[in-house]
Amino acid sequence: MPQHRADDIDAPKAREETKIEGPLGIIAGRGPLPCVLAESAVARGLPLHIVGIRGEAREAIERFSHTWVKMGEIGKMFAALNDHGCRDLVIIGGVNRPDFANVRFDLGALRNLPFLVSLGKGGDDHVLSSIVRFFESKGYRVHGAGDVAPELLAGAGRLGDKAPSAEDRADIDMAFKVVRALGRLDVGQAAVVVKGHVLAVEAAEGTDAMLVRCAELRQMGRAGRGARTGVLAKAPKPGQEERVDLPTIGPDTVSKAAAAGLAGIAVAAGQVLMAEHAATIEAANQHGLFLQGELAGETDE
Amino acid sequence: MPQHRADDIDAPKAREETKIEGPLGIIAGRGPLPCVLAESAVARGLPLHIVGIRGEAREAIERFSHTWVKMGEIGKMFAALNDHGCRDLVIIGGVNRPDFANVRFDLGALRNLPFLVSLGKGGDDHVLSSIVRFFESKGYRVHGAGDVAPELLAGAGRLGDKAPSAEDRADIDMAFKVVRALGRLDVGQAAVVVKGHVLAVEAAEGTDAMLVRCAELRQMGRAGRGARTGVLAKAPKPGQEERVDLPTIGPDTVSKAAAAGLAGIAVAAGQVLMAEHAATIEAANQHGLFLQGELAGETDE
Repeated sequence: MPQHRADDIDAPKAREETKIEGPLGIIAGRGPLPCVLAESAVARGLPLHIVGIRGEAREAIERFSHTWVKMGEIGKMFAALNDHGCRDLVIIGGVNRPDFANVRFDLGALRNLPFLVSLGKGGDDHVLSSIVRFFESKGYRVHGAGDVAPELLAGAGRLGDKAPSAEDRADIDMAFKVVRALGRLDVGQAAVVVKGHVLAVEAAEGTDAMLVRCAELRQMGRAGRGARTGVLAKAPKPGQEERVDLPTIGPDTVSKAAAAGLAGIAVAAGQVLMAEHAATIEAANQHGLFLQGELAGETDE
Repeated sequence: MPQHRADDIDAPKAREETKIEGPLGIIAGRGPLPCVLAESAVARGLPLHIVGIRGEAREAIERFSHTWVKMGEIGKMFAALNDHGCRDLVIIGGVNRPDFANVRFDLGALRNLPFLVSLGKGGDDHVLSSIVRFFESKGYRVHGAGDVAPELLAGAGRLGDKAPSAEDRADIDMAFKVVRALGRLDVGQAAVVVKGHVLAVEAAEGTDAMLVRCAELRQMGRAGRGARTGVLAKAPKPGQEERVDLPTIGPDTVSKAAAAGLAGIAVAAGQVLMAEHAATIEAANQHGLFLQGELAGETDE
């Protein structure tokens, strides 16, 4: 039996060829992903319009055709999409769970009140799949960023200069086991394992905060100092709504993993967004971390 | 099917009547538990000797017959136990994973080098069961604190004034599911669930640090403000070495759970140490939190 594969990652679902028929609508949250996706679409000759969520999306979206909406301005969002003829959507970039007490809803929101109320409950995956279903019920086609621009997904095998050691391999396998067990319960998408010891598990705090915690735990001497050891693993939850919630890594993930003393990062190949591709690999090489895309194993417990 | 039980906690193993034949040896780590156990033993008329680990055990152990040993003074520890005729042991109170580079080992330690090297690897449970087997291989009988003093374990049912609501019940069930899934992988013993949303999962940072994180996440508005909602659940890992590693709660756990805005705490009845019994319940009542001992369900997935 081949030991050197992450048997515990789910096999990627076969993706259908994505056909975008009209202008692409991009609902933009935090981070660099919305702009990277927009650039990729422009390079493909695809017309687009970005709806940026105020306080979340970066100002850089203003380079493209765009409309700003505040949280709660659902009517304004639909108007912008319709005015620009967008029936194909990508929803991308994180959005904080809003404090509903401080959100001002417009008329379009009030028309969709039952949907909004349903968002207040349940895990992330429940919320995100509700959002997708909501757009679909309005006649939109929702695509994953990786379907529109496959080059944004992490590839398979060794992605940087360094390769994981045998000890790293054992930590990778263990970390994917933890991520998978948690994913079934709609918890996080990431875990850190050091020498067979689970140092941290991600829930609502996010990967960055988890890595900061790992760095602190290591300085307290609770996780072995000295040489770089241990791995951050990221993979989507089994059955999660991959169109809106793929796990993501970037240069900042790499530098935080380095600060936590880890030997490297392993991601589920084809299922994790790595939008700043070159910068992420360069950061891994500079810090001396391995960066590994793991193919899903053939077996499934 | 009864919904109102934590079906996902393992059934407590039937405990054999514990017969302590000679003086009780207590290997004492951090916190109040070693002294509480010693008091309970004295009240039973049981002679004892405490071996306190320097830098971990409280000075209060000096009220009892005791010997201080530094981390690494394994020969001195055995000498103290033998001099006081202790063949029955309880190992109690947390100990930080030592930074082996800074530990000075005595001759007795050097004689047991292979054992010490084996402690450097693996999860907590691996380390703790190794320690138990090590003492057993030297002819000691290792007991759980709850076997010697059952009144230190959390009981079943409503332990304080307040009872969980129907919404709390759903969070309790979900939280035990998470704890159990993680426990199988030798990760943590605790999780926090708020309105069906897993806010945090414990790994190496410990319950207190996890609760502090929950308080921060809530202040950032990522987990709903306002009325107290959500639950901290604690249960042992399935198959864990319960003689040395029972989960623990105390008044400080309660005040940190209150600061995190939680509605209450649920523990696996008979499987979680609650040494400061009265103070813990009083803290729960003062903060308006429920405190619930959950019986294991009959079913096991």
